[in-house]
Amino acid sequence: MTWSAPATESEGTIEREFSLDVDGHRVPGVYWTPAAGADRLVMLGHGGTTHKKVEYLVGVAQLLCSRGIAAMAIDGPGHGDRAEGSLAGDLNAFQRTWTEGGGTPTVIADWRAALDFVEAQEGARPTGWWGLSMGTMMGLPVTASDERVRVALLGLMGSGGPNGEDLMRLAPEVSCPVRFLVQWDDEIVPRDSCLELFSALGTAKKTLHGNPGKHQDVPQFEVAGSVDYLDHYLK
Amino acid sequence: MTWSAPATESEGTIEREFSLDVDGHRVPGVYWTPAAGADRLVMLGHGGTTHKKVEYLVGVAQLLCSRGIAAMAIDGPGHGDRAEGSLAGDLNAFQRTWTEGGGTPTVIADWRAALDFVEAQEGARPTGWWGLSMGTMMGLPVTASDERVRVALLGLMGSGGPNGEDLMRLAPEVSCPVRFLVQWDDEIVPRDSCLELFSALGTAKKTLHGNPGKHQDVPQFEVAGSVDYLDHYLK
Repeated sequence: MTWSAPATESEGTIEREFSLDVDGHRVPGVYWTPAAGADRLVMLGHGGTTHKKVEYLVGVAQLLCSRGIAAMAIDGPGHGDRAEGSLAGDLNAFQRTWTEGGGTPTVIADWRAALDFVEAQEGARPTGWWGLSMGTMMGLPVTASDERVRVALLGLMGSGGPNGEDLMRLAPEVSCPVRFLVQWDDEIVPRDSCLELFSALGTAKKTLHGNPGKHQDVPQFEVAGSVDYLDHYLK
Repeated sequence: MTWSAPATESEGTIEREFSLDVDGHRVPGVYWTPAAGADRLVMLGHGGTTHKKVEYLVGVAQLLCSRGIAAMAIDGPGHGDRAEGSLAGDLNAFQRTWTEGGGTPTVIADWRAALDFVEAQEGARPTGWWGLSMGTMMGLPVTASDERVRVALLGLMGSGGPNGEDLMRLAPEVSCPVRFLVQWDDEIVPRDSCLELFSALGTAKKTLHGNPGKHQDVPQFEVAGSVDYLDHYLK
């Protein structure tokens, strides 16, 4: 349970990596904070076959830091520094890796340990979640089971993915505000399965935003808007 | 084709009614403008069984005027000052009235004449549409057929309403940015029919916003957000 590398700074954002031992396996993580400090925190869940420092996630972290919100991410099961080989773009390998890596229960335990670590180091602060696709496969269970999560940006995932049954079972337990993104022409996660998962969310404060385009074509205005949304509910 | 009543002013918004003769029938309208003047315009379509000055529409007009955007509305076929009896909340009477009033072609002609009149009086300005439910039954055909409409806020309507076939036929011709609101638990217009109409819109710049609740439960943040949206695209 330690910081594993010296802090680096880029454009006012300080980045620091950490490594945790959770139930006998290693969980590598990264923490970003504005140089001036942060009184709020968002957990960032990366997409399938990517990793905790994939470019778009770092972009979201920088947007958050520019508003005085810290961010953190960990590699999911079998991803990033936990991967044995390259997963780049291989959806079959992704599904196998997710399952062999322990699936939903492992993800919940890993993220709880990571948030425990960051809170022990930096103090407990109002906390949100941001994660699409596999970032929702991780984030919906975390949001449903960890009462520290006050608001979540989810989406690009449905009832039929590798942990679809878990998601449909846990969705009614989500009680915080949720914005849920759907790509109308999603070629990986069928639109109807996304709508089904959104429908199952238990919170009364949920909003679906649907836009044309494929899985990876989320408009930049939705990314910027998602940071506005988290900022609003973490205030 | 004249202003039919003296202007009145309330909280910086000037309201003025007008009356047009269109193809032999009377079209009563209302125009709102900020006292300081406006360089943009939004047409407001009222919902079924209501009228051009229903409370929520006046609220949207005031929000627009506070940003320097003028607004206008007319009574739809058989509605408001064109009604022979009261329609209040009577959906069967609404459907009959819509059809007997001439339906889609009459609505397109009425709105075109109304915009012609206001442009003749006040000059041509960047113009948008705001209308839900019957406001979309009117607004989608107007947006599809009048190139002066640059952006539209639509929603709460689907492929199966009184002019559903017209809407599905004209939707591919809509080419301007559209935000489309859906109430997830709509008891009047089935959600799936709304999603079908959204899917049929031809524009690449379309966004669907879905929220829990019944037909009339559109959240206030969506109303405020819709004015932000029109403001953005009319700049």
